[in-house]
Amino acid sequence: MSNGIERPGEAQQRTVISLDAMGGDRGPAAVVAGLVDSARSDDALSFVLHGDETVLAPLIARHPEIAGRVSIRHAPRVVTMEDKPSQVMRHGQGTSMWSTIESVKEGEARVAVSCGNTGALMAVSMIRLRKLPGVNRPAIACLWPSRNPGGFNVMLDVGADIKAEAEDLLQYATMGAAYARNGMNLRRPRVGLLNVGTEEHKGRAELKQAHDLMLAAQDAAGFDFVGFVEGGDIPSDRVDVIVTDGFTGNIALKTGEGTAKLISDFLKEAFGAGILSRFAALLALNSLKRLQRRIDPRRVNGGVFLGLNGTVVKSHGSADSTGVAAAIRLAAQLARSGFNDRLAARLASAGRAGQDAAVEGSGQKQ
Amino acid sequence: MSNGIERPGEAQQRTVISLDAMGGDRGPAAVVAGLVDSARSDDALSFVLHGDETVLAPLIARHPEIAGRVSIRHAPRVVTMEDKPSQVMRHGQGTSMWSTIESVKEGEARVAVSCGNTGALMAVSMIRLRKLPGVNRPAIACLWPSRNPGGFNVMLDVGADIKAEAEDLLQYATMGAAYARNGMNLRRPRVGLLNVGTEEHKGRAELKQAHDLMLAAQDAAGFDFVGFVEGGDIPSDRVDVIVTDGFTGNIALKTGEGTAKLISDFLKEAFGAGILSRFAALLALNSLKRLQRRIDPRRVNGGVFLGLNGTVVKSHGSADSTGVAAAIRLAAQLARSGFNDRLAARLASAGRAGQDAAVEGSGQKQ
Repeated sequence: MSNGIERPGEAQQRTVISLDAMGGDRGPAAVVAGLVDSARSDDALSFVLHGDETVLAPLIARHPEIAGRVSIRHAPRVVTMEDKPSQVMRHGQGTSMWSTIESVKEGEARVAVSCGNTGALMAVSMIRLRKLPGVNRPAIACLWPSRNPGGFNVMLDVGADIKAEAEDLLQYATMGAAYARNGMNLRRPRVGLLNVGTEEHKGRAELKQAHDLMLAAQDAAGFDFVGFVEGGDIPSDRVDVIVTDGFTGNIALKTGEGTAKLISDFLKEAFGAGILSRFAALLALNSLKRLQRRIDPRRVNGGVFLGLNGTVVKSHGSADSTGVAAAIRLAAQLARSGFNDRLAARLASAGRAGQDAAVEGSGQKQ
Repeated sequence: MSNGIERPGEAQQRTVISLDAMGGDRGPAAVVAGLVDSARSDDALSFVLHGDETVLAPLIARHPEIAGRVSIRHAPRVVTMEDKPSQVMRHGQGTSMWSTIESVKEGEARVAVSCGNTGALMAVSMIRLRKLPGVNRPAIACLWPSRNPGGFNVMLDVGADIKAEAEDLLQYATMGAAYARNGMNLRRPRVGLLNVGTEEHKGRAELKQAHDLMLAAQDAAGFDFVGFVEGGDIPSDRVDVIVTDGFTGNIALKTGEGTAKLISDFLKEAFGAGILSRFAALLALNSLKRLQRRIDPRRVNGGVFLGLNGTVVKSHGSADSTGVAAAIRLAAQLARSGFNDRLAARLASAGRAGQDAAVEGSGQKQ
């Protein structure tokens, strides 16, 4: 299959995305539709598309205007949502997911995007890309609709690991701040540590320790530490990045999504009852659409894996073409900002500052 | 001060509520207004009202029709939102909160209601009422708007303790189910254990252990165990009671409240922009009000302390008269159902079943 990315000279200007066509709930057609949308709106994007060539080639052939920018990489197998991460780690070669990550490892693409099984994608990413020097636990960061001017806050970890020690939480802060700087153009992001109260004496022991580490490391890591924040602060404008362990973060994320879904359903029921309400709903259509756009989960589609030698964007399994396009847009922005190299540098300097602080802290206590 | 509750004969039919008039953000006037609303709509209620008599007597005197059903108990001091639980525990005598709990301890009232500082209220309740036999950690249960016919689910613990072992989670399940039976008239409530996935191998070690304990104890404790549930299931109709530790529960509760507030604000902005939208909002007023009623936090006002020798309802600190009346209504229902005696009996039998299961379980492993 011919493609544009291998021509010398042109490759430097292009941003190459490694895209997993398989494994999403809506099949490869939705992923290719998202690819086509992204390619049309961004001339500098090229793609390595992984999956069953007999399925993908006809889908791409329908769009001759972008065919030259897509290289299909045949992968005969698919990771399903039911596959266990440990099995995929051992026997995942030949799957489109494995092949997608391999393209980033080989340097052929700058960033990977997949709609597949989250646990398996993290496992394959860990084993093939390896962790950044000094990182103990990689994390998954998500975007959360907020009252901030940019419209979103970053929260991490939302499910890479169910545990996090104080040092891991400090690394999450550094990684989340780097993400906010490069993905959302915030010069000095404000970082908050999720807890059950804002008083310094509250919460678990590892949170109090992480509080002190973040306070000491904030300058080296390039963020402002605002201290403890509560669940109600996640969408607030007093913070840009919310740090928590993957257990709590996952529960909070799904609770927020579930609450939004409940209210949205109640709203539809309320407007569906009675002729006057239906008429009002028609009149309010633009207002309701504006609201929908602000809280549309497809717009914030893309959990980013942080702490690896390479950037991986996890799109929602149920993403449609709009969702896939949003994940690709996010991946392109992170690739162009040189995000991962900057993150590695920050982690190194913040780690040193954190270690110094820990030594000083223990010294003071003695 | 004359009151109705001491007349023999009549006292048996009356449900006596011990009400803390002080400590709420809106002051004693809001609490008294809630009392008056409740007393008017429920003839069988009497009150012991705790606080500064010089403030309370004139407030009650304005409502001669209910004055005979309210006994004022003077307490010169007030617990503030800033007071630390440990200090209130040691030096809390003379406060309206202490006096409110004391009325339940003395058997003068069946149930206590307070808008004050949650941590202090739990501390005073623990030290004066003591834990039910066999209870390690008391819990706070809240109501959550849901898709169930009754309109609400129960979640606990939402903040009594930041830690919970497997045995504590089993007790929360038993206590939450008893609450749903007596407070919401569900014969055999469905209980789910909050986790980051529904597969049995997922999550922390204490959750897997609690899973097995609940499975074994469900018949003795009178609930159906549905297994692990996720954050998105909290408002769902596949479960009535959601069990989690107080750290996770508090974060989930505040995340849900924060998300609802964000969407409600966005909705107002959307309907406030443009003349057509405002006109639509007028037409849709009834629909919006119907929605508001379904998710109004004042309607679900009342965290219930479970696992003590007596029932304590914690009203939201910022509750207005509607919120206070809702908390009183909940307290009255729990008092009339003989909730706490039934809970004590269930705890005893479920504890035995859980112990048997634990012994069997460890036997199988050997």
